[in-house]
Amino acid sequence: MEFFKELQQIFPKDRVTTNETILEHHSVDESHHTASRPDVVVFPINREEVSEIMKIANKYVAPVIPFGLGSSLEGHVIPYHSGISVDFSLMNQVIEVHEKDLLVKVQPGVTRTQLNKELKKYGLFFPVDPGADATIGGMAATNASGTTSVRYGTMKDQVRDLEVVTADGTILHTGNLAAKSSSGYNLNSLFVGSEGTLGLFTEITLKVYGIPECTMAARAVFPSTEDAVNAVVSVLQAGIPIARSELVDARSIEQVNQYNGTSYKIAPTIFLEFHGNEAGLNQDVGFTKELFSDHDCQEFIFETDSKAVHQLWEARHNLAYAFIHGTPGKKMMTTDVVVPISELAGAIHDARLKLNELGIDGALLGHVGDGNYHAILMIDKNNPSEVEIADHFNKHIVEYALACGGTCTGEHGVGIGKKKYQKLEHGEAFDLMLLIKKTMDPKCLLNPDKIFDKY
Amino acid sequence: MEFFKELQQIFPKDRVTTNETILEHHSVDESHHTASRPDVVVFPINREEVSEIMKIANKYVAPVIPFGLGSSLEGHVIPYHSGISVDFSLMNQVIEVHEKDLLVKVQPGVTRTQLNKELKKYGLFFPVDPGADATIGGMAATNASGTTSVRYGTMKDQVRDLEVVTADGTILHTGNLAAKSSSGYNLNSLFVGSEGTLGLFTEITLKVYGIPECTMAARAVFPSTEDAVNAVVSVLQAGIPIARSELVDARSIEQVNQYNGTSYKIAPTIFLEFHGNEAGLNQDVGFTKELFSDHDCQEFIFETDSKAVHQLWEARHNLAYAFIHGTPGKKMMTTDVVVPISELAGAIHDARLKLNELGIDGALLGHVGDGNYHAILMIDKNNPSEVEIADHFNKHIVEYALACGGTCTGEHGVGIGKKKYQKLEHGEAFDLMLLIKKTMDPKCLLNPDKIFDKY
Repeated sequence: MEFFKELQQIFPKDRVTTNETILEHHSVDESHHTASRPDVVVFPINREEVSEIMKIANKYVAPVIPFGLGSSLEGHVIPYHSGISVDFSLMNQVIEVHEKDLLVKVQPGVTRTQLNKELKKYGLFFPVDPGADATIGGMAATNASGTTSVRYGTMKDQVRDLEVVTADGTILHTGNLAAKSSSGYNLNSLFVGSEGTLGLFTEITLKVYGIPECTMAARAVFPSTEDAVNAVVSVLQAGIPIARSELVDARSIEQVNQYNGTSYKIAPTIFLEFHGNEAGLNQDVGFTKELFSDHDCQEFIFETDSKAVHQLWEARHNLAYAFIHGTPGKKMMTTDVVVPISELAGAIHDARLKLNELGIDGALLGHVGDGNYHAILMIDKNNPSEVEIADHFNKHIVEYALACGGTCTGEHGVGIGKKKYQKLEHGEAFDLMLLIKKTMDPKCLLNPDKIFDKY
Repeated sequence: MEFFKELQQIFPKDRVTTNETILEHHSVDESHHTASRPDVVVFPINREEVSEIMKIANKYVAPVIPFGLGSSLEGHVIPYHSGISVDFSLMNQVIEVHEKDLLVKVQPGVTRTQLNKELKKYGLFFPVDPGADATIGGMAATNASGTTSVRYGTMKDQVRDLEVVTADGTILHTGNLAAKSSSGYNLNSLFVGSEGTLGLFTEITLKVYGIPECTMAARAVFPSTEDAVNAVVSVLQAGIPIARSELVDARSIEQVNQYNGTSYKIAPTIFLEFHGNEAGLNQDVGFTKELFSDHDCQEFIFETDSKAVHQLWEARHNLAYAFIHGTPGKKMMTTDVVVPISELAGAIHDARLKLNELGIDGALLGHVGDGNYHAILMIDKNNPSEVEIADHFNKHIVEYALACGGTCTGEHGVGIGKKKYQKLEHGEAFDLMLLIKKTMDPKCLLNPDKIFDKY
């Protein structure tokens, strides 16, 4: 651990540590993936320190793993080859709100709710909402999205500039403050979603939005998930700009009621939200209701007061925790495929049949507007056959998604879990990705074994 | 010309040529940049032929320059090192409209208006509108945008998948049909805007949109460009979703009237468009009118009938041609910087002062919602001092834009014209771009001397 000694020369004692509890904390994320400890955890406070870490890592060929809050779902932050876990929790400042430009510059350790609390002072908000109160750095690294991306897009659509420390310690900027650019290669989008394999983010400039004049939320109950999905698809095709459209299946509603004390009807349900001006929304909502009726919608309940709206989204957001809470001793496996929206009803139907066939308890829910759905499976990590069945199910739905032009991960990222599907999904393009990775990180220092096998 | 002989063995006589007129046609674009001829022009009809071209180019180390319609503005399609001009005009099929998925797959030679004509049958449209009736391949290659990007984004926001032939002739796909993905590196955005320097596009899958229920257009006249710009900025900050917001200065309106026979008041004018449902638009337009009054708007004229709306946008689109037509014997230089929107009024004011100081006739117009503005200068290419003054002006506004966090090109691309500003704009990131280029195209076959100097 020569590099530990060298790190100690730069960092004060409280910011470079091999403390057991801290190593333990940096050996896991929120997923079912196997834990593995780093050699050391460092807490940098600025870009220069991050650059120094990379220079030391270079000297000793030590892996470097960026760590935000550990809320990743595919093992992204787990140091499978030990090395240096770089914890960004001390780089947590909202640096500058460019109110007039609808931009904000933050450090990577800022969390989503922290950012929105700050933006609210200016009548602004940041829409990307993956559920967990993740860090902006982690969200950018995985190209996170969530419930609002049908309206506002994913992280790559919000990032205007990244300050990045690359494998050799160089500090560079990938963008600027301009609303658009055709100048040179688009490095913003190359780094967003690169999962710490191309560089470490030390500053992030994001697009933000005015808080909509009016927000309306609703819950719509359907006889089947197919009806529910098809209803939303018809709304999208009609060009109605929904801000959120979340499918929650009957099994999930059951868990939601149990965890939140709600008494929502146990049936496939769409949680909806609209953003805009009042007159426009009234027209949109009226039209949506009509289209939903055409798909046998059984109940269409407006949540008008802000408390009920809050409770509705709270219930949706707490879904994963509802399952974790409801099945102690088990670990969560969340699948994350996307299919073209025209294929979504069929894909979800197929997934339900497969769950039944395999005899496993699983909830299906999804961001219908993006064709993105998740299965939540609670598995006993110590029961190999249970793990095997869950993996089999995951493989089945990934192959289904790829066969109809979709992707193996819509928002969780590749990490360690989706590595095995990369060549199948990307073909020749995967070789190009690997070529880029090897060119930019010849020693494979940056988050090794994520996306690509360690070389 | 060994490679010409080899191309003749693969392509029938009418699709590989050294005909003088055709070489001439492929030696220019619509800009003031110096002409230069290719050795040969090839007209492929499928991906396999494009791949064969690249293999031959590899063998003889011959430059390959993709050619759409030649409407580029920074010399992108000009073969400064001769070689093979690959004309995509025969690959002009709309392959498939995925109506339910709001996607369309096209060949690169399809033009924007051709695409919209086809989409109209399905109640759909493709919003990116750079003015010229460019090819989709060319638009993707330059990350084109235009009047609607304030609402719908640029080409990179529409491209879901590219079929690309890379430097060694490999055929790969950069994306899929999913609405979002966190799977591997985002190659779509790396190739969009790469200006033919990383590969040739043979198929493009794009996001399309439902034709809005209602469209409203308006013209608003202001006492100064600053008032006009500030008025639009206040609308953006209020979160009103404008679909287009174009500034046309007094000098441009004069030319517009002369060319189109209109009698618009000669004063700084904003051309506006709103897309949505009727109730929502009425509210948006009412609020916009109020905000505009706060900025001393002198006239706010609705164009209600579709003929007047058409005439309005026709006038805006024909602006460049109005200048070309009005100044025979001169060539057009169009500048293309973007500044943060908060800096736009100041930037345009500074540009006008600089034009006056240099004593040159120039029109200022811009996509205000993006902070993107153009100066149109008509120059005599044979008069070195006129060229020098125009270059000096261009340099001045580029440096101004970069100093306030903007970019040297918002939508025209780098080509040959903005190469000299790349290092200044991107710093260390430019070295990374060059590293990627050299890795993916070691022999510098793909559109040499564009973005980067030939190596």
